[in-house]
Amino acid sequence: MLKILLIVGDGMADRPIKELHGKTPLEVASKPNIDELASRSALGLWDPLGPGLRPGSDTAHLALFGYDPRRYYPGRGPFEALGVGAELRPGEVALRGNFATVDDNLIVIDRRAGRSLPENPELVKYLNDNIQHVDGVEVRFYSATEHRVAVVLRGSALSADVSDTDPHEVGVKVLQSKALCDDEKAIKTANVINKLTLLTYKLLKDHPLNLKRIENGLPPANIILFRGAGQMSYIPKLSERGDIILNKYLAISATALVIGVAKSVGFDVITPPGVTGGINTNLSSKAESAIQALKGDYELVYLHVKGTDAASHDGNLEAKIKMIEQIDGMIGKIIDNIDLGSTIVAITADHATPIYVRDHTGDPVPLAIYSPFIICDGIKSFSERSARRGSLGRLRSVDLMHTLLDQANRIRKYGA
Amino acid sequence: MLKILLIVGDGMADRPIKELHGKTPLEVASKPNIDELASRSALGLWDPLGPGLRPGSDTAHLALFGYDPRRYYPGRGPFEALGVGAELRPGEVALRGNFATVDDNLIVIDRRAGRSLPENPELVKYLNDNIQHVDGVEVRFYSATEHRVAVVLRGSALSADVSDTDPHEVGVKVLQSKALCDDEKAIKTANVINKLTLLTYKLLKDHPLNLKRIENGLPPANIILFRGAGQMSYIPKLSERGDIILNKYLAISATALVIGVAKSVGFDVITPPGVTGGINTNLSSKAESAIQALKGDYELVYLHVKGTDAASHDGNLEAKIKMIEQIDGMIGKIIDNIDLGSTIVAITADHATPIYVRDHTGDPVPLAIYSPFIICDGIKSFSERSARRGSLGRLRSVDLMHTLLDQANRIRKYGA
Repeated sequence: MLKILLIVGDGMADRPIKELHGKTPLEVASKPNIDELASRSALGLWDPLGPGLRPGSDTAHLALFGYDPRRYYPGRGPFEALGVGAELRPGEVALRGNFATVDDNLIVIDRRAGRSLPENPELVKYLNDNIQHVDGVEVRFYSATEHRVAVVLRGSALSADVSDTDPHEVGVKVLQSKALCDDEKAIKTANVINKLTLLTYKLLKDHPLNLKRIENGLPPANIILFRGAGQMSYIPKLSERGDIILNKYLAISATALVIGVAKSVGFDVITPPGVTGGINTNLSSKAESAIQALKGDYELVYLHVKGTDAASHDGNLEAKIKMIEQIDGMIGKIIDNIDLGSTIVAITADHATPIYVRDHTGDPVPLAIYSPFIICDGIKSFSERSARRGSLGRLRSVDLMHTLLDQANRIRKYGA
Repeated sequence: MLKILLIVGDGMADRPIKELHGKTPLEVASKPNIDELASRSALGLWDPLGPGLRPGSDTAHLALFGYDPRRYYPGRGPFEALGVGAELRPGEVALRGNFATVDDNLIVIDRRAGRSLPENPELVKYLNDNIQHVDGVEVRFYSATEHRVAVVLRGSALSADVSDTDPHEVGVKVLQSKALCDDEKAIKTANVINKLTLLTYKLLKDHPLNLKRIENGLPPANIILFRGAGQMSYIPKLSERGDIILNKYLAISATALVIGVAKSVGFDVITPPGVTGGINTNLSSKAESAIQALKGDYELVYLHVKGTDAASHDGNLEAKIKMIEQIDGMIGKIIDNIDLGSTIVAITADHATPIYVRDHTGDPVPLAIYSPFIICDGIKSFSERSARRGSLGRLRSVDLMHTLLDQANRIRKYGA
């Protein structure tokens, strides 16, 4: 059995750009290592969901890991919660939350309480110390970056079919969460969320850290606004699936949502030192982690680089090209230090994030699969355009992971 | 309407092989007839189940014949039983069995009773004469090759969710079949299998043929070990499907499992004289049968050659190449004797069985479709590599049969 290294430049794929004379960032970036590996690979296109369908980072990663998103996607909340350290069982409801600033009438003044909130962990601890249950439902808060939190509701008979309390704009009152269907569970869950919202306001408005923020001219983090309720569904781990032969597999990422999806299917996860999820990340550190994991007993290593997507959402063409060149350096370091006679290396994106669109699109993404036992195409560059000539054709959704597992002899026969 | 000839080299597709300087058996074999036909064909790739998914011979053949394996696959048992002559209706449970040798404590000494067992048919007849029912369930044994048998359980309320009695190793006791779920039907079926196992021991242990075997120093065939229970599901015959226009169709094969799948969808089946399913088979005889069938009133002829797969499972590269060359001779004889103006000829494999892997893999297999009315690619050779340039792209599962039926004007419109 062979090992597998799957490398994803998040949102790396793009569309033709006028400033680049109709070329894409992948076509103009200097990436000798990727192109050399591509020349020994089979190329093709991959549609995370299907042609023209725009994936989120979460649904794209479910597909990437071999899970049909239409069957397994529980909404963003559970994955975010997992990504920031929550333990989450099937049936439990997770929501994303923001520390926000409201006035005495619960009119929203700042949806992010100034965004910079170093007090976040301490305030979350205070909430957890003072709120255990609401209407018999166990409540747990988890601190995330800046003003962000996740909350998990634990109890029987809960539902995620409830509306947000976050009005998604300022100058209006905090919303009442409502059941989105005529269902006892949803009504109960919406009630819990409404009571919990008032409780956070009651506990936070006069908290000493907030009084200090007001003193310093900063907006107090005096309430939590909830959005994106999702109910954790049962997702079998890769190692538990009867059709796949995998025991230890590692994801290297700094992005909570991606970490959450990876954990949900059983990946061990590390965020190496200096890795940020932004464009200033330390890719050399990621390369080192991948090399060590493959030299150790990890059978599949997933290496995620977020910077290409961050640059794309910002419309920063220069940063995107530079990020691709940094990924190339990272890949060069890795392939110089692993055994290509016993390792499959795949390079792709989880979706396109074209600079002009500044958001995910449904374009197919380029894919290169190096394997010592694959029929290679001899295409000497890796890009959206060159991959269209590749022999893999146009793969969809879980096809990619299945193809990697098959090349590695890590998938079982269906039938006899 | 045109006729269709579908020719499959079982496991014929491969991966690049070092000893062949990175080429595949199909690329190095001398096959002028196949290449000539390919040059007048549309080429492409076909994934029996989906990219990277490894099919069994049974699931691959369901797909080949136009049936989604995920919907119609009942497990191997029923197809094996059909393949050795059983009649099998939906709901009935079939198992594979081995004549085996056990001691007085039912410890397995030889799982195959020496493998060579010319007494097989007579012992099966003896069992059928002396066992009609167990707990009201009708029992029928069917003799297969060497030490193999199939058994069919007929009755209401049966289940295939039961474990094997075959321990799959020697030196341990025959297993008790157990219900694999908490279900009345499964419990009942496991009980029947356990009683039947003891009954075979009671009837066989002092059978004169076994006493003679012992006298001759051979292991007695004194019990039957069961495995792979499967429940026949409802599979509409090709001729019964409203979407397809086919009345008479023939499969030419010597492989029980393939014969079973073919029968389940309504094929007439013949095994021409001298045809063995091995690498020493008589392909000239197969060619003759195909020619006669197409000259007669058969509208679709499926021609299966097992030898390529047998050679691949053995890791015998030379035999695989030779077998491909024999298939080429067979195809040459056929196309010289049929009317290519009114016959569609497709050449493919049911799956890859790479020499290095010695088992089925999930690689796409090459496909060539000759038809007087198809846009042909002018690709002058037929191989895994050349087919990647073909215009059919990458077909999946039932796509292949649908494409053939469409070319032959044998498929109806869906919609108006």
